[in-house]
Amino acid sequence: MEPPIADGVINRGAPVAIHAQISEQIRNRIAHGEWPAHYRLKSEPELAADLGVSRGTVRRALATLIEEGLLRQVRGRGTFVTSMTFEPSIAQRLSTLSEDFASQGVLFDTTVLTHGLVTPPQPVAALLDLPALGSVFHLDRLRSTAGEPVTLLSNFVRADVVPGIEEFDFSELSLFGVLEGHFGLKIGTARRTFSAESATAEVAEALQLPVGAPVQYLQQVTYLTDGRPIEYSDVWIHSERLKVTSLLSRR
Amino acid sequence: MEPPIADGVINRGAPVAIHAQISEQIRNRIAHGEWPAHYRLKSEPELAADLGVSRGTVRRALATLIEEGLLRQVRGRGTFVTSMTFEPSIAQRLSTLSEDFASQGVLFDTTVLTHGLVTPPQPVAALLDLPALGSVFHLDRLRSTAGEPVTLLSNFVRADVVPGIEEFDFSELSLFGVLEGHFGLKIGTARRTFSAESATAEVAEALQLPVGAPVQYLQQVTYLTDGRPIEYSDVWIHSERLKVTSLLSRR
Repeated sequence: MEPPIADGVINRGAPVAIHAQISEQIRNRIAHGEWPAHYRLKSEPELAADLGVSRGTVRRALATLIEEGLLRQVRGRGTFVTSMTFEPSIAQRLSTLSEDFASQGVLFDTTVLTHGLVTPPQPVAALLDLPALGSVFHLDRLRSTAGEPVTLLSNFVRADVVPGIEEFDFSELSLFGVLEGHFGLKIGTARRTFSAESATAEVAEALQLPVGAPVQYLQQVTYLTDGRPIEYSDVWIHSERLKVTSLLSRR
Repeated sequence: MEPPIADGVINRGAPVAIHAQISEQIRNRIAHGEWPAHYRLKSEPELAADLGVSRGTVRRALATLIEEGLLRQVRGRGTFVTSMTFEPSIAQRLSTLSEDFASQGVLFDTTVLTHGLVTPPQPVAALLDLPALGSVFHLDRLRSTAGEPVTLLSNFVRADVVPGIEEFDFSELSLFGVLEGHFGLKIGTARRTFSAESATAEVAEALQLPVGAPVQYLQQVTYLTDGRPIEYSDVWIHSERLKVTSLLSRR
């Protein structure tokens, strides 16, 4: 049998309400990593029986922690310890980080560091099937949440396919949004590759990490439905703030 | 117009056959990163026209490079520069690394570093819904290809669900293979999280990297179709030898 929820016992004579004692004990378990992110709590009736309290008291204790963001309830699945990092499914779906943030209700800021038409590095030109002397729209952006930098993105888009793209304000608009919404492009597929890298001076400064710190690196080539490559990107992710997550099925 | 295939011109008076000159020029472009991994070459007729040689000569030049493993042809899609790293799709499908290696024809060796029944660390016990004093089967393995270590895997399996699992030889058998094949378990889903970490002394030694080098870290919890957690794992990946890759569709 699993031990009761708390190491401490409930003190019915204490001046602290019982539901608040339970909240505090759960808070401690989470803080000490004993209940890690994604841990599924027992059901409310089981917790109530373990603790010898009413189900209403348990529910009130959990409600406090849900309000604090430490727990979340998923209909039909139970109550889970919240992950303190963002967990976008960008390895599993061809959604963009901004779409994943938006669907999770995460507020973020975008700072445009570079934007304009340039001659791309040769490997990028090759992957984009670019004609000689062809130019690309180059866009460097920093995404932050709650004032903390989370990702540094560097995109190269074939300029011949999207004339005038340099006029858009990408601190307000998303790149895929402009490609699909304004230019009517049909984005088909992408290859995304994930690896661990050491932060260069430039990446370290942007993400506020020490030079050489491990960063999650994502390289992407995006293709239109007609097979033409349209976009190449390098993305560096602050791994303590954002973890790429896939929920997978065996069959 | 794209420049012809080679910086050098074809020397028809040279003692080296024309197809061999073409192979060598392509080899150089790949070696210098001018044609990066996944770059799609022009079609054979286009290459032949650019170079002023017959299509047969182009085909012979490409055949040499395909045999060397530098290029690969995909029916209906064209000829591509081969990636020199393994690119398993483990962020996209609930396949295992050994299944991905097998399907790509990659030969690998498994060294079992630890195996036996243990009391798990508390966060692992929590994620596995383990009863108090419950034990897990703990398996540490190193996977190598061509004598070079690629991944260090540390698995914890609920021992009560798989009695006797410690008797299997996991240098020969795969873990999912035993769970599904021998124990008849129905593996349903998994949560996989990817992040970049610094190699600890233990990870660095196993993967033959400097301590502190960036490594791709994968954390996984696997569930049976009935919702019970069955397995927890930590996986450290040598990022220069293996890159997690997803081929994604927008719709």
